[in-house]
Amino acid sequence: MALLFSDREVAAVLDAGRTVDAMRAALLAAHRGQLVAPPRASAPLGGGRMVLTAGHLTGEWYGFRSYDTFGHPESEQLVVLHDGRTGAVRAVGVGTELGSRRTGGLGGVAVDALARPDAATLGVLGSGGQAWTQVWAAAAVRPLREVTVHSPTPAHRERFAARVRAELGVPARAVATPAGAVRDRDVVVLATTSPTPVFDVRDLAPGSHVTTVGFKQRGRAEFGTDLLDAADLLVTDSPAQAGAYDPPMLAALPPYAGRLVDLGAVLAGAAPGRAARDDVTVFCSVGLAGTEVFLLDRLVQLAAASAVV
Amino acid sequence: MALLFSDREVAAVLDAGRTVDAMRAALLAAHRGQLVAPPRASAPLGGGRMVLTAGHLTGEWYGFRSYDTFGHPESEQLVVLHDGRTGAVRAVGVGTELGSRRTGGLGGVAVDALARPDAATLGVLGSGGQAWTQVWAAAAVRPLREVTVHSPTPAHRERFAARVRAELGVPARAVATPAGAVRDRDVVVLATTSPTPVFDVRDLAPGSHVTTVGFKQRGRAEFGTDLLDAADLLVTDSPAQAGAYDPPMLAALPPYAGRLVDLGAVLAGAAPGRAARDDVTVFCSVGLAGTEVFLLDRLVQLAAASAVV
Repeated sequence: MALLFSDREVAAVLDAGRTVDAMRAALLAAHRGQLVAPPRASAPLGGGRMVLTAGHLTGEWYGFRSYDTFGHPESEQLVVLHDGRTGAVRAVGVGTELGSRRTGGLGGVAVDALARPDAATLGVLGSGGQAWTQVWAAAAVRPLREVTVHSPTPAHRERFAARVRAELGVPARAVATPAGAVRDRDVVVLATTSPTPVFDVRDLAPGSHVTTVGFKQRGRAEFGTDLLDAADLLVTDSPAQAGAYDPPMLAALPPYAGRLVDLGAVLAGAAPGRAARDDVTVFCSVGLAGTEVFLLDRLVQLAAASAVV
Repeated sequence: MALLFSDREVAAVLDAGRTVDAMRAALLAAHRGQLVAPPRASAPLGGGRMVLTAGHLTGEWYGFRSYDTFGHPESEQLVVLHDGRTGAVRAVGVGTELGSRRTGGLGGVAVDALARPDAATLGVLGSGGQAWTQVWAAAAVRPLREVTVHSPTPAHRERFAARVRAELGVPARAVATPAGAVRDRDVVVLATTSPTPVFDVRDLAPGSHVTTVGFKQRGRAEFGTDLLDAADLLVTDSPAQAGAYDPPMLAALPPYAGRLVDLGAVLAGAAPGRAARDDVTVFCSVGLAGTEVFLLDRLVQLAAASAVV
């Protein structure tokens, strides 16, 4: 009988450290060619689409995440894990936590691999769910001394800062301007829904690491190409997916495309990471396919070990 | 919290009568344009594909069935039901029963709508799971007096006949030739894996109804075009899906395409059904998309009413 995991069970087992560990393993598996992650498939349903993003860890498992584009308020996703030998369904995750934690986890791996070893301050633009999991995962790989957050609505950024203090135990301040959130920060997270640049790259400190989770395409991006020009190192979790965006992803276009490095290659030592203390590193998050299933497989292992299920 | 249904729970609630009722309602909804059923979508996973067949009952629900083409021995499918207003996942079915029962149920609707009112004998070619659910559903719409079954392996056809006797309470005989299974039968079911014709159309009795569940394409079909030539009425559960086969479905090619009628239209009285006692009717089963989700929605309602879950 397949195991069914709700968001509550996902949250109880997959803390930030475990999630980042799982995503590091997934990126390395993809780098070794063991994780097959094809482009998304979708079916039109009148008013929205049903979307499937699948993955296959050779010899181990295959499965998918499904989500839709109807924009319903309580929309839930599915993540499904099949046994790679028998085809049986081993587990099903229902909700939103697996999807959002895996995106946060990938960002945490990027911060761990690319930010300065002594990075201790983080500024975030955006106060939604994506912003939260990025900070949640970053706090697991660097002992953060302070988080600053800006988003347009004062109540939202205040609530976000309060949550950082309460749940992560990290001092946090809501600030009234993007510059106030970004200046002098070791790590900067862009997790907005803005189609236009949300900050001035001249406010970035030397040596900072930037993760972008929001729009990053030609004509629709939360940053300008000046960020890419300022970057000494451009990294993504899936060069193949980065190259398949429509409209194209800025970092996958000339002159940046040739410089875009696979995070898995950096982890494996097959591509250089940060070279100097004052380098600016930029991580363009695309959400490597198959990582949700990878995370569900890890959840099944951890839950069995701790007898949570 | 989403409900999880295993094959055992599906089997406990969805008997043949309820399944046929649900599929009749689904066909009528599709005929009225309320059931949106797009073409299948799939993602390649190296050695197999993950396939999604989705549906949307306007204003009520949306969802999908997923299956794969790896050919694993215990491969399980998923059927997922989302609430159409909130997007929440209401139920998940794991296994194979929802998929096979819905195909049987569609066949049962066809027998009920197209076979003679007094049809009482059924011959089936094939002894696998698809053959079983066709007979199971037919027995719910006509009081069968005898079932004859032929398939190439004696042990398989004997086991099938024994199951019909035991589970359906209908006299049943395994016979050594296709002709022996088909002759003088009111209803004939073709549910084989054969790419070539499995019987001689001259063995069909006048007034018989034929359901074909197996291959029915140009160059790969369990029957010859002589069956289509002999048919007074050609029906399918989805003209759109019938027209999308590759290679093309025989009944969707000239000169048959113009005669291929939607079963939902027959049910709604918008297209004529059997016109005369000696007419031969042929149902080309394609598996209308969205019907698995429709059946899961019905299961949720029935389970709630009977407090099975």
